[in-house]
Amino acid sequence: MRLSRRDLMKNAGMLAAATGFGGLALSVGASAIAQTADKQAVPLELPWPYKKIDPLVVAEEAYAGYYKGACSYGVFEGIVGQLKKEVGAPYTTFPSTMLVVGQGGVADTASLCGCLNGAASAIFLVTGAMESKKRELPYSLIQEVFNWYEQTELPDYRPKNPKYDIVKSVSRSTLCHISVTKWCKAAGFKAFSKERSERCAWLTASTAKYTAELLNSHADGAFKMAHPLTAATKTCRGCHDKGSKLENTRAMMDCGGCHFTPKAKTAHPKF
Amino acid sequence: MRLSRRDLMKNAGMLAAATGFGGLALSVGASAIAQTADKQAVPLELPWPYKKIDPLVVAEEAYAGYYKGACSYGVFEGIVGQLKKEVGAPYTTFPSTMLVVGQGGVADTASLCGCLNGAASAIFLVTGAMESKKRELPYSLIQEVFNWYEQTELPDYRPKNPKYDIVKSVSRSTLCHISVTKWCKAAGFKAFSKERSERCAWLTASTAKYTAELLNSHADGAFKMAHPLTAATKTCRGCHDKGSKLENTRAMMDCGGCHFTPKAKTAHPKF
Repeated sequence: MRLSRRDLMKNAGMLAAATGFGGLALSVGASAIAQTADKQAVPLELPWPYKKIDPLVVAEEAYAGYYKGACSYGVFEGIVGQLKKEVGAPYTTFPSTMLVVGQGGVADTASLCGCLNGAASAIFLVTGAMESKKRELPYSLIQEVFNWYEQTELPDYRPKNPKYDIVKSVSRSTLCHISVTKWCKAAGFKAFSKERSERCAWLTASTAKYTAELLNSHADGAFKMAHPLTAATKTCRGCHDKGSKLENTRAMMDCGGCHFTPKAKTAHPKF
Repeated sequence: MRLSRRDLMKNAGMLAAATGFGGLALSVGASAIAQTADKQAVPLELPWPYKKIDPLVVAEEAYAGYYKGACSYGVFEGIVGQLKKEVGAPYTTFPSTMLVVGQGGVADTASLCGCLNGAASAIFLVTGAMESKKRELPYSLIQEVFNWYEQTELPDYRPKNPKYDIVKSVSRSTLCHISVTKWCKAAGFKAFSKERSERCAWLTASTAKYTAELLNSHADGAFKMAHPLTAATKTCRGCHDKGSKLENTRAMMDCGGCHFTPKAKTAHPKF
């Protein structure tokens, strides 16, 4: 189904801005070439209109997307690709290839997991806005995905036609290299093995599926945070985060995933 | 200056795909409403055409952008905003508001610094591609920005009309919360102070300026990596990264910025 222009503008919160819009609407005739979107009047403000999508279809598309454009692209296009089909424009005008850059924790640097970076962008595209107040809800959705990722045994979605079977691990971190290392230890495979790559493809599918579920829940007005920060992390924040005595940092991450893990410091061989 | 359609397609490497394109070109007459891009045939494949931009203008725009849409948006729109002026379409069709999500290390979680996430997206938009081989150059540019950020006393750009003067610090990390904590310690201000916010605005300007310099250098065919990984990090990677004996992680980050920093583990008070 493609929304009408009126539906689209209404959903995007743009109805008030529509005066004089009619002159733009009707001149698109020729079909676009393959790698170029149809001519559109692209709404530059967010949110773009959302229509509920099938999380299982999203998961399979994300899995395939991983092998095309890596983790971040896989999650983003798993979701946005369905919105291209269900909503059409303006999603059909978006250069999703830009999301490839989240690969391997952004350009293979292994910082923020690309699955999460892709999920965050997709969530913000369909629920975000420039105004500070209107960022709070999308940030809550994103924080839910991030906390779920840190706290859950993943991957929790098995693709229909996997290359290998994949064991689960808990990352306790949103960072690519930590997530990879925890899984390597649990699975007994190396960081650049085909099995680890397949694990990240499953993780891409799992994250896209969970994100789609949250967006659907939000569309139903039923979103609640299911994975708050841990009690231990809240204790840390009580001394170090906003409004605390020290207030010398900021984070909504599992502090204990990196801090207070002294093993490497004492057990590491001299070099 | 706006490039002609032919220039644009040529720059974007799309000339071979242009057959039948003429039918699309000429029907845009009415002007767009304020928050909607002109009707365009948006090229969905990357790279988008680049034209050299003034790093000092980029820096000032990024500084202003920080106070509008935070760090990631500031860097991205500092660069892409100039390309909207210098190149025009397809940049004028891009919903840059999506980049707001990088705020405070993505949705305020304080993982990857938003300046770097915004820089990475901008770099990939103008130099990236889906094909794996064509990701190598943009990833080198991005890794240069990330390493520069870890190793350099920042912020190194002073806006023309700053709110405060800002001391410099070295982050040794690409992560938001670590970068913030290091600066708070150096400056003596709290993590949610107005001064810390101003520091991040300067950092946004600094990162956008450096990224624009790199993109200009690349456009001249003169890009060389000036900030390789440190010798210590290379030593770590010799045992832990791709092709090594253990090969149990992956990263292009300053390992020593987090690992082998035992002070907090011994000095932290009991709680």
